[in-house]
Amino acid sequence: MKIKFIKVITVLSSLFVLSSCTSKVKDETKNETETKVEKDVKSYWPNGAQLVISVSMQFETGGQPEGAESPFSGNPLPKGNPDLPAESWFRYGAKEGVFRMLDLWKKHSIHVTSHVVGEAAVKYPDVAMAIANGGHEIAAHGIAWDDQWNKTYEEELEFVKKGIDTVEAITGQRGIGYNSNWLRRGPNTLKVLQELGFLYHIDDLSRDEPFITKVRGKNFVVMPYTLRNNDIVNVEGKHWSPDQFLTQLKMEFDQLYEEGLKKRRMMSISFHDRIGGSPAMVKAMDEFLNYVQAKSGVVFMRKDEIAKMIQNDPNTPIDNSEEKYNN
Amino acid sequence: MKIKFIKVITVLSSLFVLSSCTSKVKDETKNETETKVEKDVKSYWPNGAQLVISVSMQFETGGQPEGAESPFSGNPLPKGNPDLPAESWFRYGAKEGVFRMLDLWKKHSIHVTSHVVGEAAVKYPDVAMAIANGGHEIAAHGIAWDDQWNKTYEEELEFVKKGIDTVEAITGQRGIGYNSNWLRRGPNTLKVLQELGFLYHIDDLSRDEPFITKVRGKNFVVMPYTLRNNDIVNVEGKHWSPDQFLTQLKMEFDQLYEEGLKKRRMMSISFHDRIGGSPAMVKAMDEFLNYVQAKSGVVFMRKDEIAKMIQNDPNTPIDNSEEKYNN
Amino acid sequence: MKIKFIKVITVLSSLFVLSSCTSKVKDETKNETETKVEKDVKSYWPNGAQLVISVSMQFETGGQPEGAESPFSGNPLPKGNPDLPAESWFRYGAKEGVFRMLDLWKKHSIHVTSHVVGEAAVKYPDVAMAIANGGHEIAAHGIAWDDQWNKTYEEELEFVKKGIDTVEAITGQRGIGYNSNWLRRGPNTLKVLQELGFLYHIDDLSRDEPFITKVRGKNFVVMPYTLRNNDIVNVEGKHWSPDQFLTQLKMEFDQLYEEGLKKRRMMSISFHDRIGGSPAMVKAMDEFLNYVQAKSGVVFMRKDEIAKMIQNDPNTPIDNSEEKYNN
Amino acid sequence: MKIKFIKVITVLSSLFVLSSCTSKVKDETKNETETKVEKDVKSYWPNGAQLVISVSMQFETGGQPEGAESPFSGNPLPKGNPDLPAESWFRYGAKEGVFRMLDLWKKHSIHVTSHVVGEAAVKYPDVAMAIANGGHEIAAHGIAWDDQWNKTYEEELEFVKKGIDTVEAITGQRGIGYNSNWLRRGPNTLKVLQELGFLYHIDDLSRDEPFITKVRGKNFVVMPYTLRNNDIVNVEGKHWSPDQFLTQLKMEFDQLYEEGLKKRRMMSISFHDRIGGSPAMVKAMDEFLNYVQAKSGVVFMRKDEIAKMIQNDPNTPIDNSEEKYNN
Repeated sequence: MKIKFIKVITVLSSLFVLSSCTSKVKDETKNETETKVEKDVKSYWPNGAQLVISVSMQFETGGQPEGAESPFSGNPLPKGNPDLPAESWFRYGAKEGVFRMLDLWKKHSIHVTSHVVGEAAVKYPDVAMAIANGGHEIAAHGIAWDDQWNKTYEEELEFVKKGIDTVEAITGQRGIGYNSNWLRRGPNTLKVLQELGFLYHIDDLSRDEPFITKVRGKNFVVMPYTLRNNDIVNVEGKHWSPDQFLTQLKMEFDQLYEEGLKKRRMMSISFHDRIGGSPAMVKAMDEFLNYVQAKSGVVFMRKDEIAKMIQNDPNTPIDNSEEKYNN
Repeated sequence: MKIKFIKVITVLSSLFVLSSCTSKVKDETKNETETKVEKDVKSYWPNGAQLVISVSMQFETGGQPEGAESPFSGNPLPKGNPDLPAESWFRYGAKEGVFRMLDLWKKHSIHVTSHVVGEAAVKYPDVAMAIANGGHEIAAHGIAWDDQWNKTYEEELEFVKKGIDTVEAITGQRGIGYNSNWLRRGPNTLKVLQELGFLYHIDDLSRDEPFITKVRGKNFVVMPYTLRNNDIVNVEGKHWSPDQFLTQLKMEFDQLYEEGLKKRRMMSISFHDRIGGSPAMVKAMDEFLNYVQAKSGVVFMRKDEIAKMIQNDPNTPIDNSEEKYNN
Repeated sequence: MKIKFIKVITVLSSLFVLSSCTSKVKDETKNETETKVEKDVKSYWPNGAQLVISVSMQFETGGQPEGAESPFSGNPLPKGNPDLPAESWFRYGAKEGVFRMLDLWKKHSIHVTSHVVGEAAVKYPDVAMAIANGGHEIAAHGIAWDDQWNKTYEEELEFVKKGIDTVEAITGQRGIGYNSNWLRRGPNTLKVLQELGFLYHIDDLSRDEPFITKVRGKNFVVMPYTLRNNDIVNVEGKHWSPDQFLTQLKMEFDQLYEEGLKKRRMMSISFHDRIGGSPAMVKAMDEFLNYVQAKSGVVFMRKDEIAKMIQNDPNTPIDNSEEKYNN
Repeated sequence: MKIKFIKVITVLSSLFVLSSCTSKVKDETKNETETKVEKDVKSYWPNGAQLVISVSMQFETGGQPEGAESPFSGNPLPKGNPDLPAESWFRYGAKEGVFRMLDLWKKHSIHVTSHVVGEAAVKYPDVAMAIANGGHEIAAHGIAWDDQWNKTYEEELEFVKKGIDTVEAITGQRGIGYNSNWLRRGPNTLKVLQELGFLYHIDDLSRDEPFITKVRGKNFVVMPYTLRNNDIVNVEGKHWSPDQFLTQLKMEFDQLYEEGLKKRRMMSISFHDRIGGSPAMVKAMDEFLNYVQAKSGVVFMRKDEIAKMIQNDPNTPIDNSEEKYNN
């Protein structure tokens, strides 16, 4: 049985969250029978949400190296030859994809977290500024679209710092959240991020809610990501159709929303400029947003908002599974 | 034409089965027309079920070797580099997956067979104990997530024995059913299992019902497995959506359920901690369980219960297709 | 607009066809408006069918070489190690698959063409005989599951002859239709088949109706096959669900059935013992058969029946695209 | 909210477009409430369309080199051995596929752009002529099915010129639009095309509307292509079903059609002779065409018509992303 209406007591942890949180929480007064149900509901989010949904929008195009994953990369040209249709495939993200998604977020009044590769912002500053101007979080994604797991501590620090400096110069926002290339951070990454003042990272797939991990003894927030609700499943551009994405989103939502009555649950969704920005994918997401907006207690938040809200909350789980790297 | 109601004469082969069998069999008294139909029904299960469904839940995470199959393994890091997002992907099984599935089994009052890798139980004893405490069967899956087909008889015996000893020490249950890594047992496996007192194994895909095979002249039960009704089809995490799993389950069920009117049929379903334990997959299984619960004569059983029930039943087929290995 | 009822003037070309043809043609008397439509219908099949459907059922299991395509072959064991779960996967075809399909064909009163590998019949004579006894065509598929494209003329003749001799000794039927391993016949194959008295082969994907090709100046029938309506698309056992097969069949049928009003059209469908014989696939085919049985003018025929019916029909197309090999 | 009816002011830029444009634009007079909506509609196509759809139909079969991509190419024969079933798979395009598609275009009164490989036209002149006689655009696709990205300027000019000369001799039409093999043009391609008098090319995936790029300082039209609404996603023939194509088309259409109220949008769809020409794919396209024909303001056009209509329109975007190659 689904509980359709809950009374939400909004306990916001900071003024920042209050101002920018895109809330879909409905406080609807219901009849006696329905309000009785509310008493049994345990809500574990500080803001009383039944489910928090956080959308990522990767802006990477223009930063891709030769042979970066695309419908063409499975059959690569010999090194040194420009793959012109592949380049135009990436360019789609900057010419169409991001703008189409920005229109969608605006239509549904939600704010997302955009992971911006430094070189992408340099190549397409108008795109980076349009994202920032839309009220979205500018999060860090390295200066370049490049392996990070194999860098020394110093190289990695330089790589990340150059990224946030560069993107800040263009957008006016300094990232406090991090996403590594293909999620593949190295053993030093969290220490590097801590040194640079980051609040959280997303390169973890282990939970359906944010948690704290200790880095050099201090709290560091992990905002888990997912490969499931992620347009990257279609990076090859075949063996798939966008209704499958919509179905995945709906089934994932249904389960997490129900679980949200009993514990803190977060749903993470991810779109990449050149993939999720295609017409059919935006249509699928549009339908998903319509679907969840009809439910109460569903709150869309930027990842920085969520991280700030839960970083000092005693109900936030602490997980030191990677202790050996983070001491 | 589907026969919807059958009168079930429950012939239980042991007290154990009586106590733990999760029966969905309905003994509904119907009008004359309907009860007439019953007379033509031939039921071949000792407990009168029209269809027995047995669910497996692999608990393996924490035991995986470097490069174990995941959405990351198709593009592996050079040997020796920790693949941190891949590790977090596996960790999901212990942090979310198993617990979500345990909630589902409880919601539907069914008991499953859990194939537990020894090292997984050592790493996450709370998970192993939660499974055992839920009334589920703790079956063996080796001490480690490792190739078994290439071991000598002695190595293999040690590998299997260490697994059951270790898991018994943690959960209090000693496995009597076996599942090899990727089903890939070797020529000696059944003899090893017999020597260690096992009752059955599942590494066979040849039938839709359990059967007996002779090992050194004595009965050994084979509880066939399937790759069809198995979340492993989505281990790569792409080219797929969970409604496809639901459709596969329903179509497979419909056919086997109808066949169950004429002969003994078993439906095998399998979930892995980090794959089937995702929200959308659990939602799909929840819908499937609702679907089959509306039918009469559907019985969910642990594999040890089934094996004990049919091991001495003269109606159980004997199949010595692998005679050359098992003499 | 679909024309639902056509008056069928059955012009059977041989007594054989008359006796074994499984006709679904309905001669329903309709009101004036509907019968007027009939006058515009041009039917190009000698038997007046609007669409002829021919089902193939490959019986191959038991003949497979080490490493034959299966869900396991993508990750093969080192040569010389028995892949026991893979072997049990193949065995499913002989233990369950063929018998389940035979039940389905019987339920719907249709006869199919079974392509039987010689070694499969030797290993499972009961399966081969059950197929023959069901009124199905026993067609040839080589003595072994082996490459045919690389054999000399003499080797190939021996390979094919041994196959038909062996299967005839077991089933009493001598194949007159041929299917090469993976369709991969060689430049000499049709000449070899002609020398051995074959009437037709199916290893061609170029048309949606049978045609004549000249081999050493004489007519040889080609009964085109398809990879589309073919369970082989799921040989890997993933990235797929059986409702996709059902949808493919229905959409293919709808188009060909409509085209059948204007020209001769044949729909070819193929099932392999261990793939199409699974419960969900048989369920899908069951639903497809129900779907087409509601239409008039749909005729199911064995391929030998079709070949005999059209081999001397002047309306049968002649296509010598492979002239250079067949002179 | 969808705006269903718009008043279309047809501003045709040339008589050519007027004569051959297949317009689905409906000028329906509506009640007051609905006509008010029209005032807010901004239409950016010169002909007032809400959405222009352009279909490509590749005719390539007969020109394929050994090992060209097919369901067989993943498991190739040793070089020099004819792959007879693969050849018959390609032949399907000339024997069935193109003719089936021509019937479909005729049924729906639309004209498409056919990219014709020179050697395909030489091998099957009747197919090439049937396309031309159907009122479709004969566009260029090289003399052979061969890599173009690795040719020198002179080789490439010869390759392209021989293609248009050859196809013109057969069909009477000289191509003014170009499509490279696998879209993989080289750095010189646009200059070569300009020198040969071409008006546009399609080997670009960066936008959902045509644009101008400067080649040696002069306008050259880019008519973007897509891999999404493209039957090539099923070239391997598995892990897919045609309803997925239909769904992709509908979702893409829905989004672009809605966007068409605010800016110029073009939907590109592509079919290849031997893939899209199969019965189920044509059925899917038939259903899609029925779906969009129920909407107003949807216009199907050949790519040459579109290019001519927008080449001198000041509203056409100019994009010099590939400036470094085209100077």
